[in-house]
Amino acid sequence: MRLSQMYIRTLREVPNEAEIPSHIWLLRAGMIRKLVSGVYGFMPLGFRSIRKIEEIIRQEMDAKGGQEIHMSALQPAELWQESGRWYAYGPEMWRIKDRNEREFCLGPTHEEIFTDIVRSEVSSYRQLPLNLYQIQTKYRDEKRPRFGLMRSREFVMKDAYSFDKDWEGLDKSYRDMYDAYEKVFTRCGLVFRAVEADTGAIGGSASHEFTALSDVGESEIAYCGQCDMAATTERAACVDAPASNEQELPMEKVLTPGTKTIEEVSNFLGVDQSKTIKALLFKVCGEKEDEFEYVAAFIRGDRELNMTKLINALGIPEHSIEFADESQMAEATGCVGGFTGPVGIHDCKVVVDSELAGLKNLVAGACEVDHHIKNVNYGRDYNGDIVTDLKLLKAGDQCPVCGAPVKLARGIEVGQVFKLGTKYSKAMGAYYKDENMEDKIIIMGCYGIGVTRTLAAIVEQHHDENGIIWPMTVAPYHAIVTVVNTSDEAQTKLAETLYQKLLDSGVEALIDDRNERPGVKFKDADILGIPVRITVGKKAAEGMVEFKLRRDKEIMELSADEALEKAVSIIKSELK
Amino acid sequence: MRLSQMYIRTLREVPNEAEIPSHIWLLRAGMIRKLVSGVYGFMPLGFRSIRKIEEIIRQEMDAKGGQEIHMSALQPAELWQESGRWYAYGPEMWRIKDRNEREFCLGPTHEEIFTDIVRSEVSSYRQLPLNLYQIQTKYRDEKRPRFGLMRSREFVMKDAYSFDKDWEGLDKSYRDMYDAYEKVFTRCGLVFRAVEADTGAIGGSASHEFTALSDVGESEIAYCGQCDMAATTERAACVDAPASNEQELPMEKVLTPGTKTIEEVSNFLGVDQSKTIKALLFKVCGEKEDEFEYVAAFIRGDRELNMTKLINALGIPEHSIEFADESQMAEATGCVGGFTGPVGIHDCKVVVDSELAGLKNLVAGACEVDHHIKNVNYGRDYNGDIVTDLKLLKAGDQCPVCGAPVKLARGIEVGQVFKLGTKYSKAMGAYYKDENMEDKIIIMGCYGIGVTRTLAAIVEQHHDENGIIWPMTVAPYHAIVTVVNTSDEAQTKLAETLYQKLLDSGVEALIDDRNERPGVKFKDADILGIPVRITVGKKAAEGMVEFKLRRDKEIMELSADEALEKAVSIIKSELK
Repeated sequence: MRLSQMYIRTLREVPNEAEIPSHIWLLRAGMIRKLVSGVYGFMPLGFRSIRKIEEIIRQEMDAKGGQEIHMSALQPAELWQESGRWYAYGPEMWRIKDRNEREFCLGPTHEEIFTDIVRSEVSSYRQLPLNLYQIQTKYRDEKRPRFGLMRSREFVMKDAYSFDKDWEGLDKSYRDMYDAYEKVFTRCGLVFRAVEADTGAIGGSASHEFTALSDVGESEIAYCGQCDMAATTERAACVDAPASNEQELPMEKVLTPGTKTIEEVSNFLGVDQSKTIKALLFKVCGEKEDEFEYVAAFIRGDRELNMTKLINALGIPEHSIEFADESQMAEATGCVGGFTGPVGIHDCKVVVDSELAGLKNLVAGACEVDHHIKNVNYGRDYNGDIVTDLKLLKAGDQCPVCGAPVKLARGIEVGQVFKLGTKYSKAMGAYYKDENMEDKIIIMGCYGIGVTRTLAAIVEQHHDENGIIWPMTVAPYHAIVTVVNTSDEAQTKLAETLYQKLLDSGVEALIDDRNERPGVKFKDADILGIPVRITVGKKAAEGMVEFKLRRDKEIMELSADEALEKAVSIIKSELK
Repeated sequence: MRLSQMYIRTLREVPNEAEIPSHIWLLRAGMIRKLVSGVYGFMPLGFRSIRKIEEIIRQEMDAKGGQEIHMSALQPAELWQESGRWYAYGPEMWRIKDRNEREFCLGPTHEEIFTDIVRSEVSSYRQLPLNLYQIQTKYRDEKRPRFGLMRSREFVMKDAYSFDKDWEGLDKSYRDMYDAYEKVFTRCGLVFRAVEADTGAIGGSASHEFTALSDVGESEIAYCGQCDMAATTERAACVDAPASNEQELPMEKVLTPGTKTIEEVSNFLGVDQSKTIKALLFKVCGEKEDEFEYVAAFIRGDRELNMTKLINALGIPEHSIEFADESQMAEATGCVGGFTGPVGIHDCKVVVDSELAGLKNLVAGACEVDHHIKNVNYGRDYNGDIVTDLKLLKAGDQCPVCGAPVKLARGIEVGQVFKLGTKYSKAMGAYYKDENMEDKIIIMGCYGIGVTRTLAAIVEQHHDENGIIWPMTVAPYHAIVTVVNTSDEAQTKLAETLYQKLLDSGVEALIDDRNERPGVKFKDADILGIPVRITVGKKAAEGMVEFKLRRDKEIMELSADEALEKAVSIIKSELK
């Protein structure tokens, strides 16, 4: 393709809206274009890279026996009501009515649709196992769309669904997809980790998240240097502090004026924060209007609450919980802003971190202004409706598997695999007949890759201060031939010959034949990040050109033929 | 691919909902699947054919310098308000609000979006001409979705937009697209005609529709056997009857009891229908609620009204016009159900077919129950607010170009090209600076192909009583090897060898290795319509197989090698 004819518009300035490198460079390279917040279009070069990612995914899915289909984005509400997610999905789901007032959503995911296909079309064990996938546009009305393609409201996703006769079948399907995902992300040039993850709104019994490591990522992962433990911090189990063997002392109410925070009360009383109890108060809204319940969660004063664990413990949709208005909650439950403790609170669901059950003589709010209680003990002084791990893992905490200190890292969630088990097949009635003609439930898995987000993650990991540095496999073009001076006949002639020979060798090549200053051309080539650059300049008359890889500093002076040969050989080897 | 592992489900019965062959066979072959009315999913084989059509389109678009991009389906209302189409598009547009109550539509087409790109990113004549296209999902909330993929509510479309410096540029862009469309539809194996078309809701100054000929099509086209005239009947101009040179006689009101129809009054009075005036009464709703206007259209009694011509004459959106409730309209305008004529009607817009202006002494309703008026003459007795061609062309009518009798045919609109001119660039302010740095308006064209509808049109033209007969270019697979008896080792061995050799030759091959009765396999092969069929049966031990093309009756007995060679050579030649 000739740049003189290509629709391309690089930006010299960093767009206001862009904060992170992938967003900045994809905009500056003119590869994406914002329509409104969280909604982007793909311009010619950007769309080429998207299609390459899609093709890699397709190949790896097909290699595992996946079969590509394509379902609609429009999904009728009834299917989501069957699975119970019409309400559970919350305001992130785009909902729409047709001209006859029938309700639809724009699919944020397709479990219901795929389960519906299989329940009506699969009847025999001979049709299983089955893996169906699609590469399709998804819709999520994000509360805070940001970071360009990282968190957008319309995006491309590959979603696959496996259907098995039994749990062993699911294990194999899951492992196949896990392998395929490792291959996909490796081929896309990403440095990533597969970590245990929470199953969230999708549900199911087990999950791994594929996280492209990046400081700007919104996922936090915990991993152990000693063993294989790796999980999102949302998911990572925490080790309880060992149970105390102290004698239980009698409770003692003490005056603690103005000590509303854990830090204040621990300083005031001269006790370590680990000897205190922190209260967090929530309101959980029900499916009907005006239906709600208060929740008080208690954890050790020096810990942070893991919201995901709390939500899972309560078994509620993520969007249904919010921080309580303490003044409203006070009347119903006896809580007192800044002085709430498990003793004295009433008429609310009490969720207690498991570790508190083993600790002795802690300081907690007294549910009375300016007062705390010393020597509060679980079992004797208070009980929990739910006692479970509510803790957020921190760097240096003990690994839940081997006990070594864990490390934290940030990353971008580019894929996730789920063992759904029977969640959808049970809710929606997806059964098959086994060899004995007996009805058996279908065991499901689901597997997603954020295609557009993967593009962003690649740029996040592959850029420098001058622009993008595409891995060969996903580069919009492999090579660019830059004519330094288009009015120099020798340069133009040599460049055109080289360009043609590259094309003839199967290389996807660009030629920068624009009537622009060389500086503009070099800057653009850097921004666009085409892996191989051949510059045809002053020495064209002698048949000499400059050869440079975008990722390297080094510039080589080669004959045109040598440059051609080198380009083709590098490109071929990196595409393998 | 092995049929034993493929997700495939052919149907023995004709699905209730399906009326036309393409709908029946695509469902029976398990290529598409209905989710709800007008919303379909594509199963593995169906999606393969869709992708092949897309690839043909891509190649032909790229050959004309088109550059592929990909824009969102979500489009903000503001852009449509700018162009004036937010109201004009009517209930066919899916409208949706985000969590912040901002209004969007799901794009039924993308003129606004593409104009928005170009107005903000194109500033110089050096960036023009430009042709941008996408293959993307479109949404139209059809009043009567039907016929499967023919008229659906979510569908795939290729839409291209050209941007030129001047009208000569547009002519070239338009001609390029016209050529590309002829190539696309030819390669897809369609018999089609390009005919002049109305510009409808898209607007613009000229348009051609590409119509795949088919009796089940919803488009009616008129063409001349003598000259090149070809147009949709909506669009086709009609020749007025020659002006009469009769003497104008005085009007005479006559009693015509119960003669509400043209037929009744012409019989009662003993005059030819061509000597009468037919009235058609409408209510046109305005943009605001309760805002409306009455319209009375008059044509010769033996003619049919062409609604498209009336709508164009009035310059109103298609969805804003409906038949008037005559009893309501009577009070305001003096019309009388069954006896309305141009004389005496008042307070409504009067639209008169051009032909009436030249005819003399006609019979018209008297706007009085059971009365007509004889000898009504335009100019003397009534006038029109608008006088224009309102007639629907009928078979045998005079060709508007050469006068020969026209023929009518039905077809499926698979593509349409439009000269938009400045409609959108003016409304939305898309200008460029010319060589003298002067602002000039960008001249636009737009060009659509219904990808999913093209699939249906292909099946409509390529099927028999046993199933689909795919043209090679869009067949989901080129060849199928059928093992008659999978427990016969010689058959299996020969079939597997042949299958592998086909794959090695670059043929997209299926092998029917299912443990099914031969009858089931042959029936399925017919339904699926794979072009080349090789059957490995009893003579496998002798190395002999049966070779058959789906489109032919003839079955040839060939050696396996001959069959292979023949298959490869036919496939290669038909893919050229």
